[in-house]
Amino acid sequence: MKLYTYFRSSAAFRVRIALNLKGLKPEQVFVHLRKNEQGSAPYRGINPQGLVPTLEHDGRSFGQSLAIAEYLDEIVPEPPLLPARAAERARVRQLADIVACDIHPLGNLRVLRYLRDRMGQNEEAVADWQRHWIALGLEAFEDLVAGSSDTGRFCHKDKPTLADIFLIPQLANARRAQLDLAPFPTLLRIEETALALPAFADALPKNQPDAE
Amino acid sequence: MKLYTYFRSSAAFRVRIALNLKGLKPEQVFVHLRKNEQGSAPYRGINPQGLVPTLEHDGRSFGQSLAIAEYLDEIVPEPPLLPARAAERARVRQLADIVACDIHPLGNLRVLRYLRDRMGQNEEAVADWQRHWIALGLEAFEDLVAGSSDTGRFCHKDKPTLADIFLIPQLANARRAQLDLAPFPTLLRIEETALALPAFADALPKNQPDAE
Repeated sequence: MKLYTYFRSSAAFRVRIALNLKGLKPEQVFVHLRKNEQGSAPYRGINPQGLVPTLEHDGRSFGQSLAIAEYLDEIVPEPPLLPARAAERARVRQLADIVACDIHPLGNLRVLRYLRDRMGQNEEAVADWQRHWIALGLEAFEDLVAGSSDTGRFCHKDKPTLADIFLIPQLANARRAQLDLAPFPTLLRIEETALALPAFADALPKNQPDAE
Repeated sequence: MKLYTYFRSSAAFRVRIALNLKGLKPEQVFVHLRKNEQGSAPYRGINPQGLVPTLEHDGRSFGQSLAIAEYLDEIVPEPPLLPARAAERARVRQLADIVACDIHPLGNLRVLRYLRDRMGQNEEAVADWQRHWIALGLEAFEDLVAGSSDTGRFCHKDKPTLADIFLIPQLANARRAQLDLAPFPTLLRIEETALALPAFADALPKNQPDAE
C-alpha cells in the first residue's frame, strides 16, 4: 500500500488518521503542493485530478479522501469508522460530508489562487472568503452535534468515526485561517478528546516527515 | 419517508434518481431556493445547513446527498448502487466524489451570490468561474472512465451506480452554464444511456411538480 500525500493537505490528514486508526503503515510518497508537483504528468497518470491524496493498493490507485476512508473501512473492518445501523451511518456520513463537500472545497489552494489571480481579490478578501465558508459549515456541524443525544465523547458516541476524521483536520484549517472557534464549544471538546489519541496526533501536519 | 427538494437543485436531482432506482416514492416537500425558503427557521430545524435535499425517515432527518444515497442503498439493497468488491466501490465513490466535492460546491447558488455580491464579480466572471471548475472536474472524470476497462454502458460496467447518479445532474448543470461538452464523449455516451431509463428521466428538473 502506498499513499501520495502532503503534510499540509487536510484531505491527506484525514486519510492519515484513518490509516492510523486501522493500524496501517503504507509507504509514503510526498507530493509538494506549493511547488505544483501534483500537476506533473507522472502524478496525473495515477490521479487525473492532480490532487492529493492518492492511495495505491492491489494494483489500483484512487483519489478522494471520502472514497479512500470508506475503502479502508471495508478492507480492514476493525475498528469500524462507521456505526452499524444505517440511520447512524447516515448521521456520521452527513457530518463528514459537511466538511468534505461544503467547507473544504471552497478553501482549497487552487480555489484561493483563482480568487487572487483571476478575480483580483486581495489577501484580506481571500481570508474573509475562507473564514465565511468554514464558519458557515462549522455552525451547522456544531448544531448537529450539540443538539443530538447520539453525540458522546466523539461526534458519534464514544469512538472515533468518519465524522471525527473529517472534523479534526478542518479545525486545524480553521485556526490557520484565524477563525474564532469560541462559537463551537462541542467541536473543541471533541477535538481535545481526539487529539489525545495517537491516531489523530500522529497524523497532524507538523508530525509528518515532509513538514516544513 | 419525506423528501425536502427543489426541482433545480442538482443535489436533490441525485437523490431523486436514487429513490427512483430503488422504487421509493416519498412524500415531497418543495423548498424554493430562489425565494430563500431553505434559510427559514422551520427548515433549519430539520437541516441546520439550510440546504436541500433533506430526507426524513423513521423519525430522523439528514441532509447531504451522498449520505442520503448511501443510506438508501443500505436500507433497500436492490438494485445496488455500488459494486460488491471494495476496490470497485472505491472507484465508483471516487467518481461520485469528484462531482460532490470538487465540482458542485463551487457552483452552488450561495457561492455564486458571494462572488457577485461580496466580491463584485460581474455575470461574465461568475460564468467563467462556473465553467472553469466544471470543466476541470469533468476532464478528470472523462479520463478516469475513458481509460478504464471497468467502464461499460454506465460509469461502472453495465448498471447504474452512484457515479452515474452524480454525473447526470452535473452534466445538466454544465449545459446550463453553457460549457462545451464535446471534450467529454464518454460522459455524453453514458448520459444518453442513463436518460433512456425512466429512473433518470423522471428525475430531471423539468419533470418535477415544482418546475417553473
